[in-house]
Amino acid sequence: MRQATHRLTIRTGGKGLIPITHFVTDWITETGIVTGLLTVWCPHTSCSLTVQENADPTVREDIARFFESLVPEQAGRYVHSYEGPDDMPAHLRTMLTQSGLSIPVIDGEPTFGVWQGLYLFEHRRASHHREIVLHLMGEE
Amino acid sequence: MRQATHRLTIRTGGKGLIPITHFVTDWITETGIVTGLLTVWCPHTSCSLTVQENADPTVREDIARFFESLVPEQAGRYVHSYEGPDDMPAHLRTMLTQSGLSIPVIDGEPTFGVWQGLYLFEHRRASHHREIVLHLMGEE
Amino acid sequence: MRQATHRLTIRTGGKGLIPITHFVTDWITETGIVTGLLTVWCPHTSCSLTVQENADPTVREDIARFFESLVPEQAGRYVHSYEGPDDMPAHLRTMLTQSGLSIPVIDGEPTFGVWQGLYLFEHRRASHHREIVLHLMGEE
Repeated sequence: MRQATHRLTIRTGGKGLIPITHFVTDWITETGIVTGLLTVWCPHTSCSLTVQENADPTVREDIARFFESLVPEQAGRYVHSYEGPDDMPAHLRTMLTQSGLSIPVIDGEPTFGVWQGLYLFEHRRASHHREIVLHLMGEE
Repeated sequence: MRQATHRLTIRTGGKGLIPITHFVTDWITETGIVTGLLTVWCPHTSCSLTVQENADPTVREDIARFFESLVPEQAGRYVHSYEGPDDMPAHLRTMLTQSGLSIPVIDGEPTFGVWQGLYLFEHRRASHHREIVLHLMGEE
Repeated sequence: MRQATHRLTIRTGGKGLIPITHFVTDWITETGIVTGLLTVWCPHTSCSLTVQENADPTVREDIARFFESLVPEQAGRYVHSYEGPDDMPAHLRTMLTQSGLSIPVIDGEPTFGVWQGLYLFEHRRASHHREIVLHLMGEE
């Protein structure tokens, strides 16, 4: 049994879901670990992780619209607004989705379903460099 | 230190919370692992996992009603609706709950609290065969 | 590769976010494990875990207000109300946040970002003794 760690950097270009599955599966192959547990951690409080339908791009539009309505950007609604109207909604949208995910790895692949994709969910309007921490523990 | 993996198949009969704690605890006993980390992964995008109160069945009714109201099935509300009015709400309800859970195992049991039960949360109206991936890493 | 487990007890004084990062990092140091995977599990159904902005206290006020509005305490709204108007909302707020979190540990520290703090999110009005289960698997 052994472990490996890695840090990905992802440049976001405003709000939305950015597919990151391929970065993660490529790194698993590099480690040589075939059976184990993968953990993906997002060390930010204004972007998050989610697993979603990877086929129809309109799913991502519906998700964006849903979160705009569930956690509105609205002047005067939040006390904390140092960094603009998207500051506090970004924290709340992060809370309602995931900062981390742990996924079994079997036969050298994360056990995502056919329709599952892993996404970085950017909640800020401005472009950011986001770091993602990867950890894999298992056997060859 | 060693690891074990397993796949459960669960037949759902429409929307609702299906208790799966016993399948998971039975499998842990079979592995012989006494201290470790259990991961439960749901490889679908229209059903999810949740840990909830396991005693009063009205809790599950309140949960169902709450999610119908938070993420309504409503014609014209979502662009993505290939598979009917429950298609996009199923993805959103999955996003707001869990696709995976990792739980410490001590003395051969997952460390669920007395009132905690593990549930598969089916979001589709039609009956489905759902697969759940289990992974356990630890020591005898 | 080895593992360690621990149970924290935290006394809450009504609803709100209670910082617990320092309890967790102190315990990691005690274990002597430097690289590994930390899991924090909350074995209750009326309080939960969340990772949030740790600097500006008004973030916590905005979070409290947001959850009061998203999952209202309202007489007659829920069937399950044995323990008062905060009973069912506590279960629902737990479902929308986390019962467990797994975080990579590198250089003896969980890989939290600079602005990330780990919080116990108490959803009940009355004071409670809450237990948190910690599990760490890794190498020195």
